[in-house]
Amino acid sequence: MLHPAGGRGAMKTLIRNALLLPCTPDMPVIEAGHVLIEDDRIVSAGAGPGPGSIDADITDVEGDIVMPGMVNPHAHLPMTLFRGLGEDVDDRLFRYVLPMERKFVSPRMVRVGTALACWELIRAGVTTVADMYYHETEVGHVLDEAGLRGVVGQTIADFDPPDHASIDEGFALTELLVGAFADHPRITPSIAPHAPYSTDIAVMKRVAQWATDHPAVPVQIHLAEMGSEMAWAERTHGCRPVEVVDRAELLIDGLIAAHCLHLDEAEIGRLAEAGVRVAHNARSNAKAGRGIAPVAAMRAAGIPVGIATDGPMSGNTLDLFAQFGPVSMFAKLLGGSRKPMPAVDIIRMATIEGARVLGMDLRVGSLEPGKQADIIRIALDTPRLQPVYDPYATLVFAAQPEDVTDVMVAGRWLMRDRDVLTLERRKVLRDAGQIATEFKAEMARIDGGTS
Amino acid sequence: MLHPAGGRGAMKTLIRNALLLPCTPDMPVIEAGHVLIEDDRIVSAGAGPGPGSIDADITDVEGDIVMPGMVNPHAHLPMTLFRGLGEDVDDRLFRYVLPMERKFVSPRMVRVGTALACWELIRAGVTTVADMYYHETEVGHVLDEAGLRGVVGQTIADFDPPDHASIDEGFALTELLVGAFADHPRITPSIAPHAPYSTDIAVMKRVAQWATDHPAVPVQIHLAEMGSEMAWAERTHGCRPVEVVDRAELLIDGLIAAHCLHLDEAEIGRLAEAGVRVAHNARSNAKAGRGIAPVAAMRAAGIPVGIATDGPMSGNTLDLFAQFGPVSMFAKLLGGSRKPMPAVDIIRMATIEGARVLGMDLRVGSLEPGKQADIIRIALDTPRLQPVYDPYATLVFAAQPEDVTDVMVAGRWLMRDRDVLTLERRKVLRDAGQIATEFKAEMARIDGGTS
Repeated sequence: MLHPAGGRGAMKTLIRNALLLPCTPDMPVIEAGHVLIEDDRIVSAGAGPGPGSIDADITDVEGDIVMPGMVNPHAHLPMTLFRGLGEDVDDRLFRYVLPMERKFVSPRMVRVGTALACWELIRAGVTTVADMYYHETEVGHVLDEAGLRGVVGQTIADFDPPDHASIDEGFALTELLVGAFADHPRITPSIAPHAPYSTDIAVMKRVAQWATDHPAVPVQIHLAEMGSEMAWAERTHGCRPVEVVDRAELLIDGLIAAHCLHLDEAEIGRLAEAGVRVAHNARSNAKAGRGIAPVAAMRAAGIPVGIATDGPMSGNTLDLFAQFGPVSMFAKLLGGSRKPMPAVDIIRMATIEGARVLGMDLRVGSLEPGKQADIIRIALDTPRLQPVYDPYATLVFAAQPEDVTDVMVAGRWLMRDRDVLTLERRKVLRDAGQIATEFKAEMARIDGGTS
Repeated sequence: MLHPAGGRGAMKTLIRNALLLPCTPDMPVIEAGHVLIEDDRIVSAGAGPGPGSIDADITDVEGDIVMPGMVNPHAHLPMTLFRGLGEDVDDRLFRYVLPMERKFVSPRMVRVGTALACWELIRAGVTTVADMYYHETEVGHVLDEAGLRGVVGQTIADFDPPDHASIDEGFALTELLVGAFADHPRITPSIAPHAPYSTDIAVMKRVAQWATDHPAVPVQIHLAEMGSEMAWAERTHGCRPVEVVDRAELLIDGLIAAHCLHLDEAEIGRLAEAGVRVAHNARSNAKAGRGIAPVAAMRAAGIPVGIATDGPMSGNTLDLFAQFGPVSMFAKLLGGSRKPMPAVDIIRMATIEGARVLGMDLRVGSLEPGKQADIIRIALDTPRLQPVYDPYATLVFAAQPEDVTDVMVAGRWLMRDRDVLTLERRKVLRDAGQIATEFKAEMARIDGGTS
């Protein structure tokens, strides 16, 4: 396999002999297909070897899967530093996480955690990610340096979050974020009112107004995630969380709502009508014992649903492979048969439907002429994946991050032959290790009861 | 890292500087621990570097996890050749699998499928597996050649299975199997009446009698797996499947019962009292939309429960990592909290408790002096696994087969530095590919409606 430099390479790249999954509407499987890339865009993708005589960097992928990079529409990237911390402890949010966030969240912590996350994302073939956290401009810079595509959402909340002491300060951070990435080709600034229970109705109204003035800036929110949230809404507003957000006039076209576990039929209709999109966090929700989102009903109502990981404190990984099992199993368990949510639907959600959740389906999520060249290669030459009767089943039920060998975003190789080109593994590990050591000392302090 | 030959190596092996998870009753985590191995046995395992001056093959594992090889107590190894075939098709058993088994199952098919499976098992750190299939002597030979430890169960069934035309022939195959592996150090012959609905009460009675005469041969059965099985038992016997097996006097001490989804409280008590052990196939059961086994209640009643994969036609992989998520998530969903089934319990089930299911807990399943040296190493130096606050959480929620770097069974290295030493990857792939091509042609014939 060729190993061109990691930077912007030859003007044209031709990928040949692919088991091509372009993720266009009919989700075809094309044997011995090709993709031709020029600069940051796809020129052609389909059957056959592509142009016969061409001045291009040509890669024969020997029958490996070539498909669009995957889209992870909900994460908290810097929280990768909390991966596995307080696992199985029911009150870990209040015992460990919130106090530690208040103590440790800083621009540097955010950069280190995001770099750790970016390595994992690239390694797993995720090329677009939506994030919600603090010091979000730093998240954007690290994603940019890693070459990834991201929607970076500055959190706005009224629970005294680590990076803003007032809602005004939260908006000021958002304005800085928008300024930093205006017209950036890969980084899309976003505003993220945390959740109905942590963002007052007046604040959500202000966000809705601000969003009207900034139509290119997507809004992200956590919605209908927890039993305690349902109880809060009933207690405080005499209704359910969807109604609270609706009263705040924030159920707007393009709203990216994460979780959406607790929805009734009328609420699903209301979200569909409003143009809300959903980031489904099957593994994170199940690991917390919270429940299973009504994915089939939401999709049947026309709501685009993407497959998301949530932060690695909750879901432990940022790869979509670890989500495919739960998304599929939950649908089949609820349906009482092996038929619901076929593998091809899972891959559709992981690519083009996830892109639609982020409002980016005209630019990414499928391999089509004119779209951004966000492309991954998945090797099939391991006994663990063989035989391959249906590549969608192979991807959903047998493949793993390690099977992704090459990753391209906007025409630039971020990984070749399993070698991440845009991040230094040793530095990523060293920086994360330093912060983890501080976290461990703080946990010991908390558990020791000293303060 | 040292790369000694794959055969029986130096008489003594010393593993040092391990994050040691010996899986002894209190499930400790020992930093900078050691394991000393002599021939096929563990001499010592615990804190510190082990003997200072010793003539041994010494490996410094640099803080990687060292733990017992994992135990997969229920699989159909040759069915790896069916992996992903007819995925999501509700009637695939009758449409594809049974006709194709009748047509293609042969000693060669069984050997090729088992070799494919063995590569995957070793790669994933599974050192002991219980199998149920046809031509089981062949399964035993391939497991033996691969260096693995196995319980190989000859299926006995009355649905005209591929390798025996009568129950007498089934018993004759079992006698040959027992003869072939009598006193084998790693391969344990087993008898496997298929299920109550496919093995008449008279046959199960005969198996129970035969088992009394062969106390060293474990019995395996599928039990209480499907709604259709419950309906069959009610229709045919006016009771539930557990009662059918009880009437056949086959609820014997040491019976390995796979699935056990549909159990009530009284049945759980009856199984516990009888000394039955359970192989839990969370992913396979969920993928088929069948339901979730009452794992917490079974374990609370004292029934050992192991984590199993089922055949790769149903569960798609043979690695336990892919099972950890479902086993954990289902328990947390049923419990409505993140507390039930902590990560440490999952690893207990994957090691010592799985060994107990197979009646092998005095020989394998933990790292203790005198036990067989079945040991795996798991590398932690990838950003995808970092930070590590709790190695059990890392194993359960972030690790993957590719993170296993070294595998030893009975003191012999089967894999070093991710290189499987006892099987030829290219031959495994080539042989499997040939059979898969025949399978694909047969599927096309079936789907084309020609016959």
